[in-house]
Amino acid sequence: MKWERLSREPCPVARTVAVIGDRWTLLLLRECFLGVRRFDVFQARLGISRTIITDRLNALVTEGVLSREPYQDRPLRHEYRLTHKGLELYPVLMSMVQWGNAHGGIQAGAQLKFRHKGCGKHFRFKMTCEACGETVDARAVEALPAEGRRAPRARDNG
Amino acid sequence: MKWERLSREPCPVARTVAVIGDRWTLLLLRECFLGVRRFDVFQARLGISRTIITDRLNALVTEGVLSREPYQDRPLRHEYRLTHKGLELYPVLMSMVQWGNAHGGIQAGAQLKFRHKGCGKHFRFKMTCEACGETVDARAVEALPAEGRRAPRARDNG
Repeated sequence: MKWERLSREPCPVARTVAVIGDRWTLLLLRECFLGVRRFDVFQARLGISRTIITDRLNALVTEGVLSREPYQDRPLRHEYRLTHKGLELYPVLMSMVQWGNAHGGIQAGAQLKFRHKGCGKHFRFKMTCEACGETVDARAVEALPAEGRRAPRARDNG
Repeated sequence: MKWERLSREPCPVARTVAVIGDRWTLLLLRECFLGVRRFDVFQARLGISRTIITDRLNALVTEGVLSREPYQDRPLRHEYRLTHKGLELYPVLMSMVQWGNAHGGIQAGAQLKFRHKGCGKHFRFKMTCEACGETVDARAVEALPAEGRRAPRARDNG
């Protein structure tokens, strides 16, 4: 499979990967969720070339994940804001934070920590079933065959 | 910042990106969570070169995300299984599925669907606060400054 075909593959993971499955894109999105909106701040915090940042920001605007809005006239300057579609990537990023905090070999003092504004407590998420509210993990959920397509369940060892 | 430095940056997102922030790696992990364990099945389903698959699987074994275990003696063959650390990537993958189903422009019939074994219902997840159980989104949570480091909160527009 050619990489270019991924964005047309009818699989939601492939579609998501086609939009955000780039290392710098994910770090730019981390910055967006931390409140960064301006090009120079992205650059100062990531320390990567303007070309890479421009390229990735433009792609995210094209995908509708970020909107590009003027905040200054002379000279004209734009900032980048997460759209509704972009904000809905929050579980992807927060899942990466939580996995990285747990398994990334980061000292406790350097872990990225959060507070749930609602209850004021240190925030960690649980993934729960929308229907019944139970906490779920990989073993609690099974994939269903898609209509008219090969079953996604591919267990190959019986 | 050089890409190689990412794996040493004391940020959990950067650490996670360093392990799984590769397009093919994410699709291999999708297959692992769908039950695939064998090299030839990964290859048949992804249709990419053996070199890419070998390279990515070896990296995931090195990172402790997959274990490599013999399942046949003559000739010797191995299969790849998600470790505990690997299984804990489930929220990352499931978040990508849910976002892709919602925003990937995939027809409803082609969406990847799941069932929660516990309640038998069609599965969609909610992200909830481990402390109080409330459903959260990006706006409900704030980053806390890391001890002894620059504040991760970087809002740059007041």
